Amino acid sequence: MMSIGQLRSRFDPLTGAIAGAPVTRRRLSDLRGCFADSAAYEATLAAGDPLLYSVASVEPAKGEGDLHYGVGLLMPGRVGAEYFMTKGHLHSWRQAAEIYIGLTGEGVLLLEDEASGESRLVPLRPHHAVYVPGHTAHRTMNTGAVPLTYLGVYPAKAGHDYGTIAEKNFHCVVVERDGRPTMVERKTLT
Amino acid sequence: MMSIGQLRSRFDPLTGAIAGAPVTRRRLSDLRGCFADSAAYEATLAAGDPLLYSVASVEPAKGEGDLHYGVGLLMPGRVGAEYFMTKGHLHSWRQAAEIYIGLTGEGVLLLEDEASGESRLVPLRPHHAVYVPGHTAHRTMNTGAVPLTYLGVYPAKAGHDYGTIAEKNFHCVVVERDGRPTMVERKTLT
Repeated sequence: MMSIGQLRSRFDPLTGAIAGAPVTRRRLSDLRGCFADSAAYEATLAAGDPLLYSVASVEPAKGEGDLHYGVGLLMPGRVGAEYFMTKGHLHSWRQAAEIYIGLTGEGVLLLEDEASGESRLVPLRPHHAVYVPGHTAHRTMNTGAVPLTYLGVYPAKAGHDYGTIAEKNFHCVVVERDGRPTMVERKTLT
Repeated sequence: MMSIGQLRSRFDPLTGAIAGAPVTRRRLSDLRGCFADSAAYEATLAAGDPLLYSVASVEPAKGEGDLHYGVGLLMPGRVGAEYFMTKGHLHSWRQAAEIYIGLTGEGVLLLEDEASGESRLVPLRPHHAVYVPGHTAHRTMNTGAVPLTYLGVYPAKAGHDYGTIAEKNFHCVVVERDGRPTMVERKTLT
């Protein structure tokens, strides 16, 4: 059997760190093309290149029924009216679902069915679990004033497909309207 | 796509309840044969039949890459020196792993490799994730003074095999020795 160190990990719900786990960090410059308001993007980038998010990942095993998990930390902030967001992805193995569990802060998940393009906004908060079905592109936005952290669990064989999103993009973006996160068609902002 | 109600659920980390989710409850009388000290079991049962634990489950979809999850609530207490425990199970689809996330309280997971019988005790606490590999029987014990709650995520097709455990039982039990949870061979107590 695996060692205790492999069987268990400790995560910090405030920083998103997992003891001993590798971390991926994304700055604003890594998200070129994600925000609809490109003038606001260039202006924000010119003022600095802030860290938008980090993801610490644990991959205990890679077999057929195995699971991986990660903790995401997404900073509060906006580019124009658009909330700071993750790149978003589909799973390479399209059937793979994912479960998100909110740890701290307030955010939303933008889900988009790959075939139909149907989009949905689902709140992500502490003690809430969000189900991301298979065949569904998903992106996280921080809609609050403090860092958003969350745990994600997915099949080991899910894989991450960022390329399809980078090419086609999500049809919708999430903006602050009257102080509330609102989903609007991307084309209305460009 | 599913409705928001199907995509999201809210759980109470103190009571283990998930809004709208079915709950399974197990009393001491449901765990006949699980505790090694049968005299202590009968004596505790004669004094009442306390609720040992409940599990609320969410099963959003049943496809190949889908996931299910549940929140367990395990009460504090002992039968003789043995901590209150769950029945424990293997997954019907043996390869299926499971990830446990501690929410409140203090406990341990007893893991036993089905083929080798190798056993391991892994602490379960808030902000800790425990990986239960495939082919591994697992049972939870509350080793603290307050209710233990935890979240478990597993492949939708995992299934629960309680029969194998009911027949063969775990080789080890977890007792309080010098105030600490200690794993001992079951046969040393019977």
